[in-house]
Amino acid sequence: MTRPLTPSLPLQYSAEVAAAKARGAPIVALESTIITHGMPYPGNLDMARSVERIIREEGAVPATIVVIDGVLHIGLEDAQLEALSQSEGAMKVSRADLAFAIAERRTGATTVAATMIGAALAGIKVFATGGIGGVHRGAEETFDISADLEELARTGVIVVCAGAKAILDIPKTLEVLETRGVPVVTYDSPVFPAFWSRDSGLKSPLMLNSPAAIANFQAVREELGITGGMLIANPVPEADEIPREEMEIYIARAIDNAERDEIAGKAVTPYLLDNLFHLTDGRSLKTNIALVENNARLAAEIAVALVD
Amino acid sequence: MTRPLTPSLPLQYSAEVAAAKARGAPIVALESTIITHGMPYPGNLDMARSVERIIREEGAVPATIVVIDGVLHIGLEDAQLEALSQSEGAMKVSRADLAFAIAERRTGATTVAATMIGAALAGIKVFATGGIGGVHRGAEETFDISADLEELARTGVIVVCAGAKAILDIPKTLEVLETRGVPVVTYDSPVFPAFWSRDSGLKSPLMLNSPAAIANFQAVREELGITGGMLIANPVPEADEIPREEMEIYIARAIDNAERDEIAGKAVTPYLLDNLFHLTDGRSLKTNIALVENNARLAAEIAVALVD
Amino acid sequence: MTRPLTPSLPLQYSAEVAAAKARGAPIVALESTIITHGMPYPGNLDMARSVERIIREEGAVPATIVVIDGVLHIGLEDAQLEALSQSEGAMKVSRADLAFAIAERRTGATTVAATMIGAALAGIKVFATGGIGGVHRGAEETFDISADLEELARTGVIVVCAGAKAILDIPKTLEVLETRGVPVVTYDSPVFPAFWSRDSGLKSPLMLNSPAAIANFQAVREELGITGGMLIANPVPEADEIPREEMEIYIARAIDNAERDEIAGKAVTPYLLDNLFHLTDGRSLKTNIALVENNARLAAEIAVALVD
Ligand SMILES: [Mn+2]
Ligand SMILES: [Mn+2]
Ligand SMILES: [Mn+2]
Repeated sequence: MTRPLTPSLPLQYSAEVAAAKARGAPIVALESTIITHGMPYPGNLDMARSVERIIREEGAVPATIVVIDGVLHIGLEDAQLEALSQSEGAMKVSRADLAFAIAERRTGATTVAATMIGAALAGIKVFATGGIGGVHRGAEETFDISADLEELARTGVIVVCAGAKAILDIPKTLEVLETRGVPVVTYDSPVFPAFWSRDSGLKSPLMLNSPAAIANFQAVREELGITGGMLIANPVPEADEIPREEMEIYIARAIDNAERDEIAGKAVTPYLLDNLFHLTDGRSLKTNIALVENNARLAAEIAVALVD
Repeated sequence: MTRPLTPSLPLQYSAEVAAAKARGAPIVALESTIITHGMPYPGNLDMARSVERIIREEGAVPATIVVIDGVLHIGLEDAQLEALSQSEGAMKVSRADLAFAIAERRTGATTVAATMIGAALAGIKVFATGGIGGVHRGAEETFDISADLEELARTGVIVVCAGAKAILDIPKTLEVLETRGVPVVTYDSPVFPAFWSRDSGLKSPLMLNSPAAIANFQAVREELGITGGMLIANPVPEADEIPREEMEIYIARAIDNAERDEIAGKAVTPYLLDNLFHLTDGRSLKTNIALVENNARLAAEIAVALVD
Repeated sequence: MTRPLTPSLPLQYSAEVAAAKARGAPIVALESTIITHGMPYPGNLDMARSVERIIREEGAVPATIVVIDGVLHIGLEDAQLEALSQSEGAMKVSRADLAFAIAERRTGATTVAATMIGAALAGIKVFATGGIGGVHRGAEETFDISADLEELARTGVIVVCAGAKAILDIPKTLEVLETRGVPVVTYDSPVFPAFWSRDSGLKSPLMLNSPAAIANFQAVREELGITGGMLIANPVPEADEIPREEMEIYIARAIDNAERDEIAGKAVTPYLLDNLFHLTDGRSLKTNIALVENNARLAAEIAVALVD
């Protein structure tokens, strides 16, 4: 199943992205793990189509990034999106194994880190996601820290998210980002958000109030020769949030359940997210969809500001 | 307040630095946080002028690095230095937010990390400071580690300091520097210094005895294509030191006081430094000034050796 | 003893490596710490010669990397190898001090990190070693983590080893490699090996079954612009292994002995390795030699596949 050594990377742009690149139009990268691992069919397809529509409404072009049968796709045709939303057994690829999926002709859904690599390769400067990976609770004992943080320190892409998932250790996640020199900018709010909630209880390191200011900040970073990315934390709209006090009770309960069921290692995060879905009667998923749509809108506005 | 997108970085050299660059003369970068956040007026101005004078006496040119109203200055005219020494409300900028201060037309004093970025941008290879940031005590629980260590691993500037401030966790700071491949060289002493004291109780990883040997070591690193910086630990002169046994008692007391007063997070370091000033009847500040002057002298000698 | 500032690096290729470079033949880099610090004379010389012979038998050229009296050697003539195997007082150099040994005209044996730097400098893409450094047991308190992991994240060399030495904290070592985006590929086995044993009890992140597949994976990484290295974990042959259950008893005993004898810091690893030699009646050394030879063979096959 190994691809023979070839001089050229199997890379496929969607027609829409290829055209946007040719005319210098704004493009927003999107990850694919949320489609293959984050939500069940057909909700995942509805969400993906809705996000693409929002980006187009704002005057930008969506570019979902994914490896399908060893081909790195930058942007999908709608039929490919539909097929991906029903595919099973996709790898979840990060910096370490994005090239593995290509070399071994596998299908690999991209995490935040791998999406950033694909975006940078394609010259796309903005990327909308739900929440980034971060420092896991208990990392002082396990050393379990997402490769997303490293990628932010390394790759020059603006990542728009709703904070880090609150099942992570958010204070430690902010410490690692500070140590690595990654700007953390909350959009139009002085407090760092916590994915499902607008407020993590932590002050945000930086705040900006317009897409133009974000675009300008990144432009100055490039002029200084600073090569890494930037995290834009966009709080979920008030109407869609699950307030922090409420969410923390659910999270504590989910963590208790995981311990009772002796869940460990890589199984913990999916278990917690599934448990939260049930504990919140499905509200956690509705909030997740709302925040991804909200991030897509802001990312498109930033992409437009970057080409202005 | 956002700066409009411009193709060129607002960067201003002092007349003296511009002339030195033009003729290839030795230059020593200086940080600005020590002026705005490290010492009160007018002591900070006296210290800054004294340091600049020492560097000139050794045949090099001082280049204080700071962002003033969105302009990145490499070297200050004396009137600017005086104004800075009395300015209030300056940000304290590191890798994550140096560009933010420029983009948002703010005033930002540079930490070790941001000064290294400015120096590298201006082609300055040596930088004198008091002490670098490092791993904070309790970092095994808080993950609080200064971005200075990351910058040393990344940016090719020789940083001359008197060690890491002894309120930090010095053994862990040395471990992180080793992991990141940063050379730690003590000048003319086999023991790593502890800022106010000549001896931290820890053996230094490397030792060199002349500015020429330091310059040569860095030249070989560049020939090998190794891109990061180097830490030169220059023990404070014996006449000015507060011996380690004495200093450790003050530090333990200051840490107790911080706990009693429930100081946490970013407030801890300024609290401890202020508390040490009182516990030592002002000697900690006198030692601080003496070691900065001592580092300026060595940095100038290294800068001269680098152009020889 | 300081070398005068020179524009050219003192770098010496062996005749065999120079010829191989000229004709584009496959080359395998080898470390030198295993010779100077890893095994006593004359066993170290026998092992080194045997490893070089195996690489030649597979159609590649061996390039032992070492600094001798300030000259960086890429490949040694046999008389130099013999002299090195009997030399005393060599430094053990990593990223931080490889250039120091050159600048100060010292003799420095290269660790995994320094060997990778030398290999990359010489355009050599594959390197065979015994085991890499990693996260030390207790690192959650000491922060003692080998610079080898950082180098793997940075430098584009394929490192063939038998896993991490089992005296390290292997789960944390794998976490750090994942965080840093380093591919960890076990050769032809689904479980990550533990140096003396074929099985560490941990699933391997990735698996490949042929040198061609490994060569291809690395080629795709380069096409993606991913700059770091790759870890190939090659389990020791079954006939030579000390099974995990047995080895864990010896390791636990050696750690107890180290505590009883109050061994700390950098003295711990050599103490443990020596203690294991005695506890296993010399079998740990025999296994070590067998796995290095096994890795040399696979590395040569990968080097051949890379030029095919
Ligand atoms: Mn993880
Ligand atoms: Mn901090
Ligand atoms: Mn160590």
